[in-house]
Amino acid sequence: MIVVFKPDATPDQINQILTKAEQLGLKTNVSEGVERTIVGLIGPEEVLQVTPLEVFEGVERVIPVLAPYRLVSREYQADNSIVSLSDDVKIGGEQLHVMAGPCSIESLDGMDRIARQAREGGATILRGGAFKPRTSPYDFQGMGEEGLKILKDVGEKYGMATVTEVMDARDIDLICRYADMLQIGARNMQNFTLLKEVGKAKKPVLLKRGISATIKEWLMCAEYILANGNFNVVFCERGIRTYETATRNTLDINAVGVVKQLSHLPIIVDPSHATGRWGLVAPAARAAVAAGCDGLMIEVHDNPKEAFSDGGQSLVPEKFSALMQELRPIAQAVNRKL
Amino acid sequence: MIVVFKPDATPDQINQILTKAEQLGLKTNVSEGVERTIVGLIGPEEVLQVTPLEVFEGVERVIPVLAPYRLVSREYQADNSIVSLSDDVKIGGEQLHVMAGPCSIESLDGMDRIARQAREGGATILRGGAFKPRTSPYDFQGMGEEGLKILKDVGEKYGMATVTEVMDARDIDLICRYADMLQIGARNMQNFTLLKEVGKAKKPVLLKRGISATIKEWLMCAEYILANGNFNVVFCERGIRTYETATRNTLDINAVGVVKQLSHLPIIVDPSHATGRWGLVAPAARAAVAAGCDGLMIEVHDNPKEAFSDGGQSLVPEKFSALMQELRPIAQAVNRKL
Amino acid sequence: MIVVFKPDATPDQINQILTKAEQLGLKTNVSEGVERTIVGLIGPEEVLQVTPLEVFEGVERVIPVLAPYRLVSREYQADNSIVSLSDDVKIGGEQLHVMAGPCSIESLDGMDRIARQAREGGATILRGGAFKPRTSPYDFQGMGEEGLKILKDVGEKYGMATVTEVMDARDIDLICRYADMLQIGARNMQNFTLLKEVGKAKKPVLLKRGISATIKEWLMCAEYILANGNFNVVFCERGIRTYETATRNTLDINAVGVVKQLSHLPIIVDPSHATGRWGLVAPAARAAVAAGCDGLMIEVHDNPKEAFSDGGQSLVPEKFSALMQELRPIAQAVNRKL
Amino acid sequence: MIVVFKPDATPDQINQILTKAEQLGLKTNVSEGVERTIVGLIGPEEVLQVTPLEVFEGVERVIPVLAPYRLVSREYQADNSIVSLSDDVKIGGEQLHVMAGPCSIESLDGMDRIARQAREGGATILRGGAFKPRTSPYDFQGMGEEGLKILKDVGEKYGMATVTEVMDARDIDLICRYADMLQIGARNMQNFTLLKEVGKAKKPVLLKRGISATIKEWLMCAEYILANGNFNVVFCERGIRTYETATRNTLDINAVGVVKQLSHLPIIVDPSHATGRWGLVAPAARAAVAAGCDGLMIEVHDNPKEAFSDGGQSLVPEKFSALMQELRPIAQAVNRKL
Repeated sequence: MIVVFKPDATPDQINQILTKAEQLGLKTNVSEGVERTIVGLIGPEEVLQVTPLEVFEGVERVIPVLAPYRLVSREYQADNSIVSLSDDVKIGGEQLHVMAGPCSIESLDGMDRIARQAREGGATILRGGAFKPRTSPYDFQGMGEEGLKILKDVGEKYGMATVTEVMDARDIDLICRYADMLQIGARNMQNFTLLKEVGKAKKPVLLKRGISATIKEWLMCAEYILANGNFNVVFCERGIRTYETATRNTLDINAVGVVKQLSHLPIIVDPSHATGRWGLVAPAARAAVAAGCDGLMIEVHDNPKEAFSDGGQSLVPEKFSALMQELRPIAQAVNRKL
Repeated sequence: MIVVFKPDATPDQINQILTKAEQLGLKTNVSEGVERTIVGLIGPEEVLQVTPLEVFEGVERVIPVLAPYRLVSREYQADNSIVSLSDDVKIGGEQLHVMAGPCSIESLDGMDRIARQAREGGATILRGGAFKPRTSPYDFQGMGEEGLKILKDVGEKYGMATVTEVMDARDIDLICRYADMLQIGARNMQNFTLLKEVGKAKKPVLLKRGISATIKEWLMCAEYILANGNFNVVFCERGIRTYETATRNTLDINAVGVVKQLSHLPIIVDPSHATGRWGLVAPAARAAVAAGCDGLMIEVHDNPKEAFSDGGQSLVPEKFSALMQELRPIAQAVNRKL
Repeated sequence: MIVVFKPDATPDQINQILTKAEQLGLKTNVSEGVERTIVGLIGPEEVLQVTPLEVFEGVERVIPVLAPYRLVSREYQADNSIVSLSDDVKIGGEQLHVMAGPCSIESLDGMDRIARQAREGGATILRGGAFKPRTSPYDFQGMGEEGLKILKDVGEKYGMATVTEVMDARDIDLICRYADMLQIGARNMQNFTLLKEVGKAKKPVLLKRGISATIKEWLMCAEYILANGNFNVVFCERGIRTYETATRNTLDINAVGVVKQLSHLPIIVDPSHATGRWGLVAPAARAAVAAGCDGLMIEVHDNPKEAFSDGGQSLVPEKFSALMQELRPIAQAVNRKL
Repeated sequence: MIVVFKPDATPDQINQILTKAEQLGLKTNVSEGVERTIVGLIGPEEVLQVTPLEVFEGVERVIPVLAPYRLVSREYQADNSIVSLSDDVKIGGEQLHVMAGPCSIESLDGMDRIARQAREGGATILRGGAFKPRTSPYDFQGMGEEGLKILKDVGEKYGMATVTEVMDARDIDLICRYADMLQIGARNMQNFTLLKEVGKAKKPVLLKRGISATIKEWLMCAEYILANGNFNVVFCERGIRTYETATRNTLDINAVGVVKQLSHLPIIVDPSHATGRWGLVAPAARAAVAAGCDGLMIEVHDNPKEAFSDGGQSLVPEKFSALMQELRPIAQAVNRKL
């Protein structure tokens, strides 16, 4: 932590900070510049996070030096983490994994048809929502447990691992009985109650980036999960909110590289939400693989015109399979398999 | 709902939409322009929200005409709503109400000292967090029920109504026993599970704007609460996330005027979070009152240097009282009382 | 300037920075922390701005300590600057000044009618564009010199100072012959060629904030003008671009307080562009005065239905006069005159 | 253009719009819904762009239907445009082209060394700034004409086409004598004076996206150039400003797909500015090629520690060559050559 003083700070004001630091068990380093005095505080920064040094008289600015997260960082673990959903599906290694399926689970028949075709196209993980976070209280809210059963049955039938969203801490046990991976949606990224509880669960967690979350905040939310004991976390970049309205969200492709530098945890990309339009899913998916992601999450529906939600961003199975064909040589070009 | 077709859309493609509309019980109006055909769909737009017309062949764009919310709108209720917290505290009328108190409830003594001074300054509602949404798992997480008791006791002692944040649906009953108003924090604005449950509660709700929520999304979240039976909702503008880093958030002062035009529900402003720096709270609070808000929420702490959270944006009681003095003639200038 | 090293930085890598600093004539202060070494560089930071220390091996991050601007800062000049447009119109003192008029100058008659009514309402500065920055090449581009003559004649007739936009360095001399103040529009805020040239002009400059400019970048653009010899600069906050679409722009009301803290130069607010809708101009204008701005710029047109540009955000003269009545008690409440 | 009326609009108010439309030579289509009346205006929308229909009484909202640009659109020209810089360098076809070189031209020797290595790596276009838009008036402002000579001489020596930024309309003739392509920088994207003048020049134009420009605004700026007679325009996505601070800008990779859908003009990507950190240039460049761009612009410097500007985002020649090797199989995977 570095404390920058105002040009007119008095020695007493500077001493007040030095005394405070001493009380907190920190060492200090005073540097007197031409215009300003700067004090470095040496030691664990956690003790300072609840001490608002910027309210002390004479202080102009406080600059944190250390990242606020630990367990998720490359410094804590240099090697890439591998997150296992099943014997066959391990995210973070050479093999890329693609999660495919409808936005909402709508029926057994529909799920079966879509899963079969997604599997044939090369998807290894089946996705589908049983509890849906809908912006309107009047929209379809999901099939609940019945949907979870469909997800599990269809996943087993086609040899796919499964992932589905958890929105309420009270549903975690239920969902853990049916799915291989718990998804935390973008709107719940900072639902700290939920983060703590999935941190205690025994299933891997897919942590979507909040719609306006910084990468640092996103890493901190993963830290919540790891700090509660669950190290099996996969990040999912799904587009951020910007001023641009030509697409539903702006895919922050830079996030792939940044997360890979800062953390040992895997990161996948969701080009469906990151564009919001099926016609833009393919270039976004290709870009994601080329940038070095560990997998993709893609919405697939065989009848988007009748889909209960997000039909406009779903690929039909034929287009999904064609996209998978396009992705393979790109994966190879970056030394990955698909 | 208006459907704009591509210049090369065929009659068959246009008929496909007309047929779909008929199935949904909607009337249509076809307008053939020089370059494009446009079809207006007449009837309740809800039935279209789950029908992704943009995936039909030949369709270029779909434009919704009606707002997606009903109960919160000025069209549903032309007159301003008044939300009662107690016999004395009614938000939305001529009288402005100020919520003041520390970010976190830290101790009975501290709360008592702060409340007394805030009350003397003119605050009528006591605020304080017992369950805290902290970005770091290593930060202070709140006093829980013990904090709620302190809030209630101190509020009663000084004749103030009380408000505190609810983060978990499982805590609603508990909090309702102690506080007069339930606060939904910015990070939970789209926690639809929580919205539904406070919609069933018998206490007024303070709905903070999500950090990157559009005004339309915010109104939709209030709709969730009203649709579940609770019409006592007050909006709270607390700053939005933008590219500007000189302040913690950007106070969207325009939101006050926009919400007043679109909705009958009251709106207050939180200048503490909207600036993030105590030195900027006063101009932001003055601006909010001048813009026409129904109240303010301000962080007050008598020893910000030792505050457990958000000390940097808290006013000391003397500055709070001075600010209240500044606000009174402005309130009067816009025909309000304070 | 503070240099933070990576945890595994070698002594050689640290020495490389120390040597570089010495070459540049800077003193250094080394602080060895538990996890990282930090080096403070003491002396003028300008020499470092062209030296990318972050590319040196072992360096993790470089943190500037001093603001990059000098002449515009409160440290350079503690007292508020007063910018004179004429004997009667001095911006930055107790008296607030309001610039009013149409977006574009359209005709002598029209300008005369609008100016007369704006003057009666209390405006002291007449605005109007003769050269227009239009987003479409097919839109009206302004009357040019003929418009400037109208501006000057009408301004003199009603005893108002005048302001108009300069878009091209080649027009500066021409505009200086007719107008009292040169406006740099938002789109040209970082047109450094133009900034240098108005820095050499003898007229005051109104520097609008770029649509996505940080406050720091905005201050740096003013620095360009002052560094070229022209200290008569007034800032104009006119809304920034955010994700919110309910308004044309988001009025960053916090900017008033921040600029007042950092700089001695005056700041006014343009509620017309900051909202984009005439129905929202009044609350935004009231908020701006309450926040402590030094004046306003408001679009006024007596027949917005036929206006050549921006009719939707223009007030009719009656509404302008009514707004000025509303603003007077607010100005008084913050110890200003209007 | 579609006009949506308020629920309580009177027949007179609706007739006022119908009459106005008739005066403007437009046909109308009236659709009476359950809650609102909607009127479609049929004919060229240009005549409406200067008529603010939203200020008419009873009007709630005005929705444009047609895109405001024509010449740049796919509807105007279905086939991809090819922009020729020289006999060998044609942007927009199967062959991708990479522009490489230092941010600023610093000396003949330096430019020669960098160009030789960039050419060996596979770059076909040499970049370098002679006039620099620097945010600080105290920074290096470029070598001017001397720099242009160096650019031309070195480009010819190594058989590379050349591109350099033009900041002032008065410099266009000069730059046209030395360079093969005129670059409009992000800060000048909406400098309409400059756009008109390069529209009259005989050289191809590289139009960088403004730092907060929507894709629609960007296309409109190209329209300015085409409307003035110059159809040789190439877009350059260089990152946009968002709230994220981990990178200098956010690369809007979706923009590649969107521009390809809407326009026939080529688009390249600048991963150096879009990330701001050399360590992130490679994944961003790979993503851009995979997304389908027509080329790249990359900053290369053989001694970034001593670069006059933007050293932190420059690749050293070895890393540039390695990146080019990585890009070739990706280009092949998307049916392009590099």
